[in-house]
Amino acid sequence: MVPDYLEVSLGRGVTVALDLRWMGLEPDLDERLAGPLGRALSELAALEGGAIANADEGRMVGHYWLRAPELAPRAAEGEQGGAGAIERQIRDAWRDVERLVLRLAGRFERVLVVGIGGSALGPQLLSDALGHPGDARRVFFMDNTDPDGMTRVLREVAPLSEVLVVVISKSGGTPETRNGYLVVREAFKAAGLAFAEHAIAVTQEGSVLSGESSKWLARLPMWDWVGGRTSVTSVVGLLPAALQGIDGEALIEGARRMDEATRRPDVAENPAALMALAWHAAGHGRGDKAMVVLPYKDRLMLLSRYLQQLVMESLGKAFDRAGTLVNQGLTVYGNKGSTDQHAYVQQLRDGRDDFFATFVEVLEDGPPDALATSFAVEPGVTSGDYLSGFLAGTRQALADAGRRSLTLTVPWLDASVLGGLIALFERTVSIYASLVNVNAYHQPGVEAGKRAAAEVLGLQKRLVELIADGESGTADDLAALADADPRDVFHVLRHAAANGRVAVEGEGLDRVFSRIEG
Amino acid sequence: MVPDYLEVSLGRGVTVALDLRWMGLEPDLDERLAGPLGRALSELAALEGGAIANADEGRMVGHYWLRAPELAPRAAEGEQGGAGAIERQIRDAWRDVERLVLRLAGRFERVLVVGIGGSALGPQLLSDALGHPGDARRVFFMDNTDPDGMTRVLREVAPLSEVLVVVISKSGGTPETRNGYLVVREAFKAAGLAFAEHAIAVTQEGSVLSGESSKWLARLPMWDWVGGRTSVTSVVGLLPAALQGIDGEALIEGARRMDEATRRPDVAENPAALMALAWHAAGHGRGDKAMVVLPYKDRLMLLSRYLQQLVMESLGKAFDRAGTLVNQGLTVYGNKGSTDQHAYVQQLRDGRDDFFATFVEVLEDGPPDALATSFAVEPGVTSGDYLSGFLAGTRQALADAGRRSLTLTVPWLDASVLGGLIALFERTVSIYASLVNVNAYHQPGVEAGKRAAAEVLGLQKRLVELIADGESGTADDLAALADADPRDVFHVLRHAAANGRVAVEGEGLDRVFSRIEG
Repeated sequence: MVPDYLEVSLGRGVTVALDLRWMGLEPDLDERLAGPLGRALSELAALEGGAIANADEGRMVGHYWLRAPELAPRAAEGEQGGAGAIERQIRDAWRDVERLVLRLAGRFERVLVVGIGGSALGPQLLSDALGHPGDARRVFFMDNTDPDGMTRVLREVAPLSEVLVVVISKSGGTPETRNGYLVVREAFKAAGLAFAEHAIAVTQEGSVLSGESSKWLARLPMWDWVGGRTSVTSVVGLLPAALQGIDGEALIEGARRMDEATRRPDVAENPAALMALAWHAAGHGRGDKAMVVLPYKDRLMLLSRYLQQLVMESLGKAFDRAGTLVNQGLTVYGNKGSTDQHAYVQQLRDGRDDFFATFVEVLEDGPPDALATSFAVEPGVTSGDYLSGFLAGTRQALADAGRRSLTLTVPWLDASVLGGLIALFERTVSIYASLVNVNAYHQPGVEAGKRAAAEVLGLQKRLVELIADGESGTADDLAALADADPRDVFHVLRHAAANGRVAVEGEGLDRVFSRIEG
Repeated sequence: MVPDYLEVSLGRGVTVALDLRWMGLEPDLDERLAGPLGRALSELAALEGGAIANADEGRMVGHYWLRAPELAPRAAEGEQGGAGAIERQIRDAWRDVERLVLRLAGRFERVLVVGIGGSALGPQLLSDALGHPGDARRVFFMDNTDPDGMTRVLREVAPLSEVLVVVISKSGGTPETRNGYLVVREAFKAAGLAFAEHAIAVTQEGSVLSGESSKWLARLPMWDWVGGRTSVTSVVGLLPAALQGIDGEALIEGARRMDEATRRPDVAENPAALMALAWHAAGHGRGDKAMVVLPYKDRLMLLSRYLQQLVMESLGKAFDRAGTLVNQGLTVYGNKGSTDQHAYVQQLRDGRDDFFATFVEVLEDGPPDALATSFAVEPGVTSGDYLSGFLAGTRQALADAGRRSLTLTVPWLDASVLGGLIALFERTVSIYASLVNVNAYHQPGVEAGKRAAAEVLGLQKRLVELIADGESGTADDLAALADADPRDVFHVLRHAAANGRVAVEGEGLDRVFSRIEG
């Protein structure tokens, strides 16, 4: 029978509660899905044992080992270094992070992380959820290839003399990260500073970035058996967190405890299996309902963005593992409560019935405040009571309108608790992906956009050359010359004209592009 | 015939382009919807003329007058002050904002805005999209009733001696804002500072807040004919922006020009009518596809959150205007490109076909950089070219998978352009709401959550009293005594126990709550 409430201890007095009483699950759901659930848990065990889970790329999927290195396969296929190599790599990386942070103690006031996707969202979540004004360093992020955005970050983080740069890229070839790194390096040069003395690389052995960073302050590893969206408990998350002063050991420990709790074969005792069941029931195993993530805690504002990647990139797949076209997925959005009540909860309650909510409740309102302000806003009522009341009120109002929700309750928010929450969602994704038979560990759809972008950049070079050689005309004219889609030609040349590289006359789709004369 | 591309001039060299070539609209869609579209444009004209558009609350809806005060009804029903009163109010408010900012020149280094929903999202968008390191003041926001979050904002904005507080609340009764204001006032008191000498109220005449703020630095108006989610071109948006050093006049002017362009009766020339048609076609007039907002510009990161409120709170309605149950809505989410390509675009391309994308393209990569960094990352290719290439590449990859998108292109990002974009979405919402026959100007679903929350807070008081009187037991026991839902009792008492107000023994739903002794 599916329980409607489950508490899991993570040690250190931390209990995570999963409350399904507003989810309306059929009590025999676990029996009806007993077969697929059993398979899902077996597959998760096989994954943890070193099976090739990412078949496309022939890779193992080992992010769970990051919290329990002793579980890593002792002599995995293709592993260099022999038995125990993976365990040793993980423990060495922990030690290297620790030593590096000690070595840098007292140096650098601010950290600039250059990374995108899994190399930014996890570190950003940790920094925002666990940061305090008294932290060792403030951490900034450059996570795009927008020149204006890069300029803004560089100004915020200035002066560069006090800045430590952490470039995170498995291959070193992700263009946004590479561009960010090149622009930052140039800014150091312009400031008369030696970039290598301010830079750390987090990258895979043998990558382009690894080669380039041999003289930097440090190089730390990424491994092919950790995917970007599950890398937050690897060096990717641990290093920026440690530089900020966040307790990475506690993060790992919380995740490890949750991993253990979610290995339980009895579904009724396994919060990840239960949550996967709830997702399955809500969206009929097809993701028909979006997951609206509503943490009632300002610090968890980035949780939904983090989960958006973890869940949507893992589950949003065209084909299932049998090769059938399924167009799976599970949409995730949300910001925070009670703020969002004043934004889109109107639609959640009255409008389209196409979502279920995931409330996150943090019981402790906060430690007694050093500012000595009082949070008692009425006799016997604090602003935290309001926050708690709004969660309950919104959940009930949604339930009254027939909208389902589940609630995760944690006692407070620290590194251990956040580690536990992250692991819970990671393992729910693993189990749910098995239930609906998709490969959670690849992202074939991302390549198409990259290829198309590379074609557009190639087209730009050809067009700029054509025009430099004296050709001119409308996008249609030039598309014929360049043997390209007129829409792409228009896109490229309008952008080039706006940035002073070609001349333009007229308006609309028929504007005429030509060489800048004189 | 529906054009697939339209350019609108906003003056000052600004052209906004709406590109529907990736939207796949049927060419005769405007003819098939000619009747509803004509009605929608008539209704918008009637609204601008002072019709009671918010019938539930007997209110006019006048946010478009904020950009053209001369259009406000000259002798509106119920208007105090006679003919021209609304026009005068708007012009007086502009003047008052200007004078106030002059009066405060050189005083206060930072601004703390206390507000939620429409009283925060608009100002936040302006501040982030248009802010620069050299601005007159930095603006911070307190937009929730989370004690921990409040503490964090207070620490970030410290020292309070240099802080100007702007409390924005129409009624003064919104609990999150009221709690924020009380906590901030207490912090000023604790710091030995006179709050009234640091505070400005933006509120409706006769409100609780209006009464309390008579001795503050200033009081500026909110009007009942401007709804929260469309208040960004009122004092709500203009005052924080002006204090930061943002050109509010340009914002208004950009919105005014877009308002004019979107009054055109010829649908083919009217970008709001065209965008409403596109929304209608994408989601079959039922919002079957979510709108994923992807601005390729870091500064527009908050646009999707802003539009989430504008669109979902306006369109997410249970009943249409004929009283039929329709459960309408249009879900909005998104962050920014190309960053999101490394997060959930995998699902957009390969997964569920349940969205259409709205790309926002900013042509100018940025002014030449004062930091003297170079954005040329390869010979002849800048990081901005990559950004532009990624937009085109992702759009094409989505199109290849049969996913629709529309693109808004602006030449650069300044106050005028942002005003134009905001007005375009506001007017699209007005027209689309008419097309699907819902009232875009009320939010009845929000009340249910507020009522339920108030009940929970009342229950908390009763329970704390019961327990202080010596009662104890499980949530079930105490629910029987308090005649309440055991789930609510459990929720309230677990929170009270975590914050040291009642004692607790045991775990799970059967834990026992009692008085703290000694």
